[in-house]
Amino acid sequence: MSETPRISHAAFDALVAAELPFAVAMGFRLEGLGVGTARCRALCRADSIRPGGTIAGPILMGLADFALYAAVLSRIGAVPLAVTTSLTTNFLRRPRPADVLAEARLLKLGRRLAYGEVMLLSEGEGDPVAHVTGTYSIPPEGGR
Amino acid sequence: MSETPRISHAAFDALVAAELPFAVAMGFRLEGLGVGTARCRALCRADSIRPGGTIAGPILMGLADFALYAAVLSRIGAVPLAVTTSLTTNFLRRPRPADVLAEARLLKLGRRLAYGEVMLLSEGEGDPVAHVTGTYSIPPEGGR
Amino acid sequence: MSETPRISHAAFDALVAAELPFAVAMGFRLEGLGVGTARCRALCRADSIRPGGTIAGPILMGLADFALYAAVLSRIGAVPLAVTTSLTTNFLRRPRPADVLAEARLLKLGRRLAYGEVMLLSEGEGDPVAHVTGTYSIPPEGGR
Amino acid sequence: MSETPRISHAAFDALVAAELPFAVAMGFRLEGLGVGTARCRALCRADSIRPGGTIAGPILMGLADFALYAAVLSRIGAVPLAVTTSLTTNFLRRPRPADVLAEARLLKLGRRLAYGEVMLLSEGEGDPVAHVTGTYSIPPEGGR
Repeated sequence: MSETPRISHAAFDALVAAELPFAVAMGFRLEGLGVGTARCRALCRADSIRPGGTIAGPILMGLADFALYAAVLSRIGAVPLAVTTSLTTNFLRRPRPADVLAEARLLKLGRRLAYGEVMLLSEGEGDPVAHVTGTYSIPPEGGR
Repeated sequence: MSETPRISHAAFDALVAAELPFAVAMGFRLEGLGVGTARCRALCRADSIRPGGTIAGPILMGLADFALYAAVLSRIGAVPLAVTTSLTTNFLRRPRPADVLAEARLLKLGRRLAYGEVMLLSEGEGDPVAHVTGTYSIPPEGGR
Repeated sequence: MSETPRISHAAFDALVAAELPFAVAMGFRLEGLGVGTARCRALCRADSIRPGGTIAGPILMGLADFALYAAVLSRIGAVPLAVTTSLTTNFLRRPRPADVLAEARLLKLGRRLAYGEVMLLSEGEGDPVAHVTGTYSIPPEGGR
Repeated sequence: MSETPRISHAAFDALVAAELPFAVAMGFRLEGLGVGTARCRALCRADSIRPGGTIAGPILMGLADFALYAAVLSRIGAVPLAVTTSLTTNFLRRPRPADVLAEARLLKLGRRLAYGEVMLLSEGEGDPVAHVTGTYSIPPEGGR
C-alpha cells in the first residue's frame, strides 16, 4: 500500500465540483484523506432537517456514498469511472440537527471491486447514527 | 389482508407535506397506492442530473425509501413513527435523464418489522436501474 | 436473451458433484432451469432441523446461493469461476420442518457482475420464509 | 454498559449444545466473550472444504451469524428468542483451507433490534476473507 493518497484533497474537491454537483448542493465536504480512508461532513442546513429536528435519510446515504468514493479514489487516483454498485445503510439512532460526520475505510480493493464501510455520527455525539457498507466497480484501466 | 389501502392518496400527500419536506424538495410524488404496494415518481430536474446525464444516487435511494414507506402505510395507516431501519440499494444500470419510477411492494408485515422491495426504472425503459430492499420498524401501537 | 439455458440440468448436476460437495452434503437439488431463473430444493433432514422444528439459517442461505448460482450459469454457461461477492438474507418467517424451495431469478447480467434475488418457501406454504439478494463476479472470459 | 458479559462462556456453550445442533455439526466454537463482542472459530474439516482448497460459503455465513449471536447474548443474557432478521455477507478473499476466525461486535443494542458486524479471517492471515453485518430481533421481555 502506498504511503500517500493517490488523489490530493484539492484534486478531489475539483473532481467533485466538476462531476458531483448534487454533492455540492447537499453540502458535502471532504475533511481529510488517508490511504484507503476519508473523513467527510454534511453541513446541517434548514432544508436537510426533517420535522422533529433530524437529518433526512437521503443526506445520510448520500454522504456515506460520497465518503466511500473518496476512500476509493485515495487508493486508485482520480478514476472517474468508479461507480457505486451497492450501498447498504443501517440506521441506528436518530441524528441530531447537527452536522453529520462520516468516517470511511476500505476493507478490500481488488482489481475489479472495492468494498468498504462508513460510520456516520452527529457532530458532538459518540454513538453512530448509521453504519453503511458499499461496493464500487473499478474500471479495467483503473491505473493500478 | 384488507381490500383497500389503510391510508388514502390524499392523506399520504398531506403527511408528506407535513413530515417529509425533503421528499417534496427532491420532487417525489405518489402515483398510486395498493394494499402493500405503491407506485411513485421522482421528477427529473436540472439539479438531480449528474454530468453525463444520469440521476444522482441519493435521488434513487431517497425515492425507494419514499415508495416503501408508502407501501408500509398502505397496510398500517398513517402511523408517523414507522421508521426505516435499513435500506440496501443495488445499482444495476445508469439511469437516463428522465423521471424515475418506483414500484414498491411489501414482502412481510410483522408486528414489529416490515420488509419490502422496490424496483426503480427510468421512464420509458424496460430494464430496472436499481433494486432496493428495506426494513421498517413498526411502533408497538401500530394500529393493527 | 437466448431461448434455452446455456447449461443443461445434467451438466449443472455434474458440476455440482465435482465442485460443490458441500451443497450435496446439505441436500441441495436443482429442480428446474430457465433462462436466468432456477428452482431448487433443500431436503429436510434430521440434521438440518433446529430444536422447535425449524430449518437452520445456514441451510437457507446456502440454498439461496446455490439457486442464484444456477440462475447465473443458465445465462453464462458452465463458467466455474463465477463467484459470489455478496449475499443478503432477510429472514421473514420461521420455516416449517419441511423441504425448502428456492425460486431464483437474475435481475441483471452485466459483463462483470450478475445480480439477482431468491424467494425461499417452506414446501406447502404460501408466504416466503426468506428473501435473498446476491451478486456474482463474472470472470472476464465469461463466454458471452 | 455492564462490565462483564451477561452470559458466561459455559452457559453459552450449554445453550448452543441444546439449541443449535447445526452449529455443533459445523464445527463452530466460542473462543472469547466480551461485553458486546465475541471471538469464534470454525474448525477446518474435510467436509467444509471446497475443491481448490477453500471453505464453503455457508460455513462462513453460519459462523458469522453464530458469532454475532454470541455478541448479542453477551449484552442481553441467555434470551433464547433473539432471532436473526437479516445477514449481509460480503466475500472479500478466497479463504485458505484453515480454521476461520470471527470477530464480532455490536454497533447498536436497542430495545427491539441489535445490529453488529463481523470480520472473518483465515487463521494465520491478516486480511479479512469476509465482512458480515447482521440484525437481530430482541424479544420484548429481553431482560434489559
